[in-house]
Amino acid sequence: MLSFASDYTEGACEEILQKLAETNRESLPGYGMDRYCQSAARKIQEATGCPEAEVYFLVGGTQTNAVVISSILAPYEGVVAAQTGHVSIHEAGAIEYTGHKVLQLPEKDGKIDPADLQEYLQNFEADANHDHMVFPGMVYLSHPTEYGTLYSRKELQAISEICRSYEIPLYLDGARLGYGLAGEENDLSLSEIAHLCDVFYIGGTKVGAFCGEAVVFGEKNVPAHFITRIKQQGALLAKGRLLGIQFDVLFTDGLYERLGRHAVEMAAALKKGLKQRGYTFFRESPTNQQFVILENDRMEQIEKEVSVSFWERYDEDHTVVRFATSWATREADLEHLWEILDRIEAEREK
Amino acid sequence: MLSFASDYTEGACEEILQKLAETNRESLPGYGMDRYCQSAARKIQEATGCPEAEVYFLVGGTQTNAVVISSILAPYEGVVAAQTGHVSIHEAGAIEYTGHKVLQLPEKDGKIDPADLQEYLQNFEADANHDHMVFPGMVYLSHPTEYGTLYSRKELQAISEICRSYEIPLYLDGARLGYGLAGEENDLSLSEIAHLCDVFYIGGTKVGAFCGEAVVFGEKNVPAHFITRIKQQGALLAKGRLLGIQFDVLFTDGLYERLGRHAVEMAAALKKGLKQRGYTFFRESPTNQQFVILENDRMEQIEKEVSVSFWERYDEDHTVVRFATSWATREADLEHLWEILDRIEAEREK
Amino acid sequence: MLSFASDYTEGACEEILQKLAETNRESLPGYGMDRYCQSAARKIQEATGCPEAEVYFLVGGTQTNAVVISSILAPYEGVVAAQTGHVSIHEAGAIEYTGHKVLQLPEKDGKIDPADLQEYLQNFEADANHDHMVFPGMVYLSHPTEYGTLYSRKELQAISEICRSYEIPLYLDGARLGYGLAGEENDLSLSEIAHLCDVFYIGGTKVGAFCGEAVVFGEKNVPAHFITRIKQQGALLAKGRLLGIQFDVLFTDGLYERLGRHAVEMAAALKKGLKQRGYTFFRESPTNQQFVILENDRMEQIEKEVSVSFWERYDEDHTVVRFATSWATREADLEHLWEILDRIEAEREK
Amino acid sequence: MLSFASDYTEGACEEILQKLAETNRESLPGYGMDRYCQSAARKIQEATGCPEAEVYFLVGGTQTNAVVISSILAPYEGVVAAQTGHVSIHEAGAIEYTGHKVLQLPEKDGKIDPADLQEYLQNFEADANHDHMVFPGMVYLSHPTEYGTLYSRKELQAISEICRSYEIPLYLDGARLGYGLAGEENDLSLSEIAHLCDVFYIGGTKVGAFCGEAVVFGEKNVPAHFITRIKQQGALLAKGRLLGIQFDVLFTDGLYERLGRHAVEMAAALKKGLKQRGYTFFRESPTNQQFVILENDRMEQIEKEVSVSFWERYDEDHTVVRFATSWATREADLEHLWEILDRIEAEREK
Repeated sequence: MLSFASDYTEGACEEILQKLAETNRESLPGYGMDRYCQSAARKIQEATGCPEAEVYFLVGGTQTNAVVISSILAPYEGVVAAQTGHVSIHEAGAIEYTGHKVLQLPEKDGKIDPADLQEYLQNFEADANHDHMVFPGMVYLSHPTEYGTLYSRKELQAISEICRSYEIPLYLDGARLGYGLAGEENDLSLSEIAHLCDVFYIGGTKVGAFCGEAVVFGEKNVPAHFITRIKQQGALLAKGRLLGIQFDVLFTDGLYERLGRHAVEMAAALKKGLKQRGYTFFRESPTNQQFVILENDRMEQIEKEVSVSFWERYDEDHTVVRFATSWATREADLEHLWEILDRIEAEREK
Repeated sequence: MLSFASDYTEGACEEILQKLAETNRESLPGYGMDRYCQSAARKIQEATGCPEAEVYFLVGGTQTNAVVISSILAPYEGVVAAQTGHVSIHEAGAIEYTGHKVLQLPEKDGKIDPADLQEYLQNFEADANHDHMVFPGMVYLSHPTEYGTLYSRKELQAISEICRSYEIPLYLDGARLGYGLAGEENDLSLSEIAHLCDVFYIGGTKVGAFCGEAVVFGEKNVPAHFITRIKQQGALLAKGRLLGIQFDVLFTDGLYERLGRHAVEMAAALKKGLKQRGYTFFRESPTNQQFVILENDRMEQIEKEVSVSFWERYDEDHTVVRFATSWATREADLEHLWEILDRIEAEREK
Repeated sequence: MLSFASDYTEGACEEILQKLAETNRESLPGYGMDRYCQSAARKIQEATGCPEAEVYFLVGGTQTNAVVISSILAPYEGVVAAQTGHVSIHEAGAIEYTGHKVLQLPEKDGKIDPADLQEYLQNFEADANHDHMVFPGMVYLSHPTEYGTLYSRKELQAISEICRSYEIPLYLDGARLGYGLAGEENDLSLSEIAHLCDVFYIGGTKVGAFCGEAVVFGEKNVPAHFITRIKQQGALLAKGRLLGIQFDVLFTDGLYERLGRHAVEMAAALKKGLKQRGYTFFRESPTNQQFVILENDRMEQIEKEVSVSFWERYDEDHTVVRFATSWATREADLEHLWEILDRIEAEREK
Repeated sequence: MLSFASDYTEGACEEILQKLAETNRESLPGYGMDRYCQSAARKIQEATGCPEAEVYFLVGGTQTNAVVISSILAPYEGVVAAQTGHVSIHEAGAIEYTGHKVLQLPEKDGKIDPADLQEYLQNFEADANHDHMVFPGMVYLSHPTEYGTLYSRKELQAISEICRSYEIPLYLDGARLGYGLAGEENDLSLSEIAHLCDVFYIGGTKVGAFCGEAVVFGEKNVPAHFITRIKQQGALLAKGRLLGIQFDVLFTDGLYERLGRHAVEMAAALKKGLKQRGYTFFRESPTNQQFVILENDRMEQIEKEVSVSFWERYDEDHTVVRFATSWATREADLEHLWEILDRIEAEREK
């Protein structure tokens, strides 16, 4: 079935497959101590403009969030996130499972508004009872957000400054970072992100890899015994090579950027085609995820032929669904989509 | 200094002091196995109209919430609470520390609106991605709430019905239950509360005891090995007699009710006096906590002579403070308060 | 029934009862900010010879262990304890509940042998795989131990030196410290203990108080936001006065020492009387707990008239039971015991 | 460098590489809902003789242990394991991180002795204080063990019977199960293991896959909302296909067995060659891991040319090292090893 359900419906990009085959019989040490992990780390140091960066490879996004957040927070601290942040609602309580509260702020287009953050931190400091409250110990952003939106340079700078003035680390979840960097109107480079945040991760799973996320600590700020923390949370891959090789490939010859650009181009074409056909968008997204409001009966009809993702109930009669493109989307997929949608509309008009 | 800061500024009521002295040299088994705990449990069974109720005595409110909630929830579940609920903000993340999320609903006068609860549960069930979310496994109410407000019988019935239709236990935090039962316009009896909830606790610390909260499981629904859970969370008092004796006294000859009534009468007089003097109330409260909005400079002047509690910042120039009465408040305290306030106003007018 | 079951079968010493009554109507701030807590802390600073010591009052022993240990350990660390340590077996997994492993060493008379500790730490450091293991982050001793035994000055010095050479904090659980200080052949003063350990607690529950343990951090080494950690674990008593007043009394005019001495004198008389009557001791204890091996049928007969504690199965036909004296034991209790035991023996001989 | 360091030093077997390439562009649902996961599950049902078995695919061993154990245990329960069990010492406290104690039994050749288990459970039940202890809630075995040893059918039957009589689930960690099934003198079939245990996992990472472990619940005994538990612990792979495809291949045409057999044959040849050369074995192992005691200086010399694993310090002058074979070991590797060892010995004799 034609699928726009998500950006993790195919395997891995060809370059990765090929490299896995080429290196397969090399005998390498485990747990990320192999030369491909080292090579990938060096390439990421270069791409981020952080020659001192320490890079760790984990398997998936929720895992990465739980390991990074719980390793940085003190026991009496929580992580500040937008109420629509992935850690707030779609990780089955993975952060709370590590004993920490997610301190939720209102969302604006899926983002934290710097003014809301400033106000929250100010009020916390001023609250005479704050010893009985969870201390804000970290700020979590997703970029792109769960609604495909992006922080502008100005917004990220503002948030970064607030965090630094309160001495609170800033963490950016880049599960779809490749699609953000290629986003329409994006004005943030990978290096700027690296320098404005204290720690962030570059998503592989959704951008061309079988699995894998690269956590980047820019400035000698890795939590003590981080390898042991990773192990303790069941997140240390024995064959770390699987992650190292994939990121080594993604950060060779600009592949990561190319994959991102392709998906965003496909998304732009998707958006244009849907708008031309009169579909209503739930939010305006400049990246690879597009959110459309569908009448429930139309949705059911479409879902017989096209796989999309349920996002949320809109009202009694409407649902928000997500169409996602990815590095693997082909132009033929779009053509196929138009054919199906046009046929459905024609049938409905009868 | 004159204090209306809270309802836990004095020791214990005289009857408790006396009974502690009388029983002091009796040699009794530890950990709640003594005859005073048993006697208190029987009296609570009677007072709640639940002859089968199982009653456990814990030391404090946050502890009780953490032990009860974490013992009832499955690991993949969270507790639903108003965003102003004690477990949501003023327990330093005690619930998250046990690995569970507090699922926050909007508050209306500090309460959960049954319609909001219904909508939330319905949406959760309908959400196609809910396997990646925290399951609602319990509903938490405080009664009186953190703003001194009370659920009406109709409201509690509505919430209870919703919980039962979704098979989600309903838990009521009665830290100040004595003041709720005596509340102006209160229409809920202890027995009704006991039957509408699955578990609740009767607060002792704030209603005449040195410490102690009585957890009541009405219908053979105590979590397995609850004593071991209590022990595991450091909440099992070696000299359980200290709790048993206090509750035995509180539930003898209607003392608990009398203490509650006294505090609410004092609060009514307090409210009347403050209103007469033109003070602005932040919320309307029928119980022992009264919330007043003060100009910051007036607040500072008052606080030099009367201890009250900071509640929250109202705006740049105003602060919400709490005046609390208790079983220990005397009419003379009120007279003293009026004298101070009137003198301050006279000075300010100069 | 005559009871030697434990040292927490009576209420509190008379001096405490009286002071609670005297101070009952004083209006005091909550959460340990009252003047009795401050006064008690000052007296403990003096008694321990640590003028800079920071003192916190918690309610019970397991709670204190969980709060202190989890507040000091990093997430990747565990606490080293004897396999018979209270934290190892008799706290229902309270330490593991906070996410930390108890790293068990062999016990010798209930104690850790310095040589075993040295060897364990040395092997850990030398182990090439130790990044996949729990790091030793603290050493836990109980003094007196669970078998009533005491560390000699020489032993505690050796352990303290090892800990300092590995930069691992040393924590001493003094649930029965009063009975240890008064122990036969004891050569460790309170001040020496305070200086050899990084943190320890002075037990109140078992030495004359209704409840309460005083945690002493000797050298500006309190974990960050310790009050919030206490709150988060449900261990912050609203009416902190209850603890402050009790410790203020215990540390006035040498009361704590007197109570300890009395119990140990009673224990010496108990031991002597039991030995004269031919009872077999499981371990030799210089403090208030005495462990006796009884034939199961004799034990059953005794338990009909004297309450003692099951300690452990010795073999098919024998059980180890504990006789405990306390501050509350009277000479008449011993006389009563002899009368019962002698009668039982006379009956058995028939 | 020639490596016998572990069984996870190469990529994946050719058949897996090929299948990943073939299926790469298929658009498949995420999170294990794809047809390869389903197909692999069916093949495992067949191979285990459990047509009702429910099969879940996780990424790594420590992760699998943490997820399975924490999902089955009640909060007041711990898992019983040999003191040398992987969960006891080499998972960085992953089990304790989930709040549960590992209850350690003595090891005999890396195994739990049924008699020790029986005695422990009997004593626990008989202990009058067991409400203050961690309840045994599960028994954990590794098979092969960390020392390469195997439970005989008789031993596993005995342990299974004890577990069932105490109603405690039995869990078998099969990280190297393929090498166990092919082990010399092994008398346990996959189906017997499946029926004697309540849950177990079939290791992929160490037996030919890039990563992946297949958890098998034989009898409708999957913990409630297990997918949510997996997600909550960061263990739910977005591209579940990566695991499904690999296990589908491993369980096609007896590949898993062939890989196991090959490694054990290589290990037999390794063992024979080492014995002929006079090396001393630390333990006798019938599977792919061989433990040899080396003089420290000889070890250092060998490690310059052959990668082996440090296992433990033997004494001042000796170390235990592990030589591991795997599905990827070639006869040429052995020949290379003999050449190196013989040359080293010749040099040493000079």
